[in-house]
Amino acid sequence: MDPDAVAKAFVEHYYRTFDSNRADLGNLYQDGSMLTFEEAKTQGSQAIVAKLAGLPFQQCLHKVSTVDCQPSGPGGGVLVFVSGLLQLAGEQHPLKFSQMFHLIPTPQGSFYVLNDIFRLNYA
Amino acid sequence: MDPDAVAKAFVEHYYRTFDSNRADLGNLYQDGSMLTFEEAKTQGSQAIVAKLAGLPFQQCLHKVSTVDCQPSGPGGGVLVFVSGLLQLAGEQHPLKFSQMFHLIPTPQGSFYVLNDIFRLNYA
Repeated sequence: MDPDAVAKAFVEHYYRTFDSNRADLGNLYQDGSMLTFEEAKTQGSQAIVAKLAGLPFQQCLHKVSTVDCQPSGPGGGVLVFVSGLLQLAGEQHPLKFSQMFHLIPTPQGSFYVLNDIFRLNYA
Repeated sequence: MDPDAVAKAFVEHYYRTFDSNRADLGNLYQDGSMLTFEEAKTQGSQAIVAKLAGLPFQQCLHKVSTVDCQPSGPGGGVLVFVSGLLQLAGEQHPLKFSQMFHLIPTPQGSFYVLNDIFRLNYA
């Protein structure tokens, strides 16, 4: 497994799905998954999707600037660290954000998100 | 173990040490530890300390804005996500940065840094 390839494929899939149909992100999380979105903590796939769907903006577009990754230990996990711009519909200027994911391999040969931390980078 | 308490104590210790004597950070890393500093990857405690000591600035001061953390799995690890300002000596404006750490418990009841990813947030 090449962590860089995993990270790249995940990041493309994640933000494309986020920007087109957030509800589909539920497949990427499991019951033990945790999301910290601007300080608010949510656990479990269902609650995380509800949180993401309930964010106070509908249409948005993520533009990724950097992707860094490292193996997270002997278990085959991958840590992914993303920076980028988040353009909200109707807003003139995009917001800068940083986000990290901890991806864990599944028995089916895919990965799920165990940890997800998102922060806007305020000026 | 309270991940929030671990994260808070680690972050205070890490940046205080970084700003006073970077060479002492070596104690926090082990042979399997990885640092990604602005895209450059370094592995192992010795190489990481050499990398940090060789950064093109001497005196600096980190000011932490936010600390988020989550348990990284059943092994007792902790993921820490930091945003803040980095003031370099002689520079008028501080730089914004984001950094993540993956802390792993040691048999001695402490933690070491397995993963460390640092990025400046360019305007």
